[in-house]
Amino acid sequence: MPGPHALDRALELEVVDADVVRGRTRPEWANMVGPFGGITAAVLLRAIESHPDRLGEPVALTVNFAAPIVDGEFEISRRAPRTNRTNQHWIAELSQDGDVKTTATAVFGIRRDTWSDTQATSPEAPPPEQVARSDHENLPTWVRLYDMRFAEGSFSGGHVDVGPSSTTTLWVRDAAGRPVDFPAIAAVSDIFFPRVFLRRGMVPSGTISLTTYFHVGQPHLDALGADYILGTAHANRFDRGFFDQSAQLWSRDGALVATTYQIVYFKG
Amino acid sequence: MPGPHALDRALELEVVDADVVRGRTRPEWANMVGPFGGITAAVLLRAIESHPDRLGEPVALTVNFAAPIVDGEFEISRRAPRTNRTNQHWIAELSQDGDVKTTATAVFGIRRDTWSDTQATSPEAPPPEQVARSDHENLPTWVRLYDMRFAEGSFSGGHVDVGPSSTTTLWVRDAAGRPVDFPAIAAVSDIFFPRVFLRRGMVPSGTISLTTYFHVGQPHLDALGADYILGTAHANRFDRGFFDQSAQLWSRDGALVATTYQIVYFKG
Repeated sequence: MPGPHALDRALELEVVDADVVRGRTRPEWANMVGPFGGITAAVLLRAIESHPDRLGEPVALTVNFAAPIVDGEFEISRRAPRTNRTNQHWIAELSQDGDVKTTATAVFGIRRDTWSDTQATSPEAPPPEQVARSDHENLPTWVRLYDMRFAEGSFSGGHVDVGPSSTTTLWVRDAAGRPVDFPAIAAVSDIFFPRVFLRRGMVPSGTISLTTYFHVGQPHLDALGADYILGTAHANRFDRGFFDQSAQLWSRDGALVATTYQIVYFKG
Repeated sequence: MPGPHALDRALELEVVDADVVRGRTRPEWANMVGPFGGITAAVLLRAIESHPDRLGEPVALTVNFAAPIVDGEFEISRRAPRTNRTNQHWIAELSQDGDVKTTATAVFGIRRDTWSDTQATSPEAPPPEQVARSDHENLPTWVRLYDMRFAEGSFSGGHVDVGPSSTTTLWVRDAAGRPVDFPAIAAVSDIFFPRVFLRRGMVPSGTISLTTYFHVGQPHLDALGADYILGTAHANRFDRGFFDQSAQLWSRDGALVATTYQIVYFKG
């Protein structure tokens, strides 16, 4: 009988006291330095959503990657400085041996049945069944946990075609078929390799701050299940050591699941 | 002789102790409820950049509007949980009588002379001299502090044309000719009226969380001076009481000054 899924293992948190939980890094989520940023975002979101005073569902999450997380245990403190009638504001900090490694703020809220509309348009891509799964050879460990199929701006087997575009569009799903929940979406929001690779090749780089806006509720995530998500990402500006990334996550049926932004450090 | 500019008055902060400063709301920045969100973002950024331990210039700022700020004094606590060699992470909280009203995180950094490029393209708009200044009648007090000239998706004199687009493009500059600095850019990043007005008319709404990425340094801001900035904003998704806004600020000479995102609460 298989053990828990790699994502669920990474999200296991032990309650230390009302405001602090303890977790640990998992080797299967290893990135170049420390764990994959997406799993750190996911575990911070889980730390907040598992707090007994949590109100509603995630609306916005900002994660600031302050310092590399080393292998082993970490503690996450989380508190809600403000709870309103239909939304709630959170601050969280992940630390190891008293050193802050990651900070986060989040907004949770209760959605109401009212007018909804999608203004953005989904990118063009052939169905995932018509695109080959990318090769995870020569890539960090965590990549093999996802089934990625690049329609544009590929990074397969550690190979990247440098050119004028910074856009990647890919289908992605959990390789083991785990259904998505909010932590899973938070993780996928960091799935895109650094945009600078498409312009300058594999230069040192790392996400400094990541913001994700969630545009669906749990029932919609339940309907998605473990199906592919269509992600598209591009940069707007590379400026002397920093660049931004703007991305969207779409369901196969054309729902905008999340929009997500990051600012990234790069060399060269 | 005129007194200090309205923005400089709003940014006046008194040092309480190493980590706390005190400011006060200014009537000229009044919005529908509490002060204009942009001035709150600006004062939080100023509170951080005026800290003696601050490293470099602003790279990213996230402001969470947790509760309305009432007229009068406020305190801002700010601390840097992490300082690296070329970047620094900040957490700030604005409170009144012990109640947290606004939280923020920021990343400051040192830019290095390296490869830079702009991937985004500036929106189409006639020069500001060919567009009429918008009418600030029937609009909140703070609007008269700006010279706004709408090229698309106007909201002038409290009138808005409801339609299928959520896009606004406008030229904006300080009405009194104050040169821009980072707090001024933080304020302008919240200059766009709620996108839902263009789709549903003037329904109750308010920004919950605002993230701005700065793509230029102080020398570039000095070169901008008090000239017009071209702003463009659109929504990607309205979803049961929340919508997002994605925006860009451009200089007249085609430099991308900032990209900025928000999640907004709305009724109806």
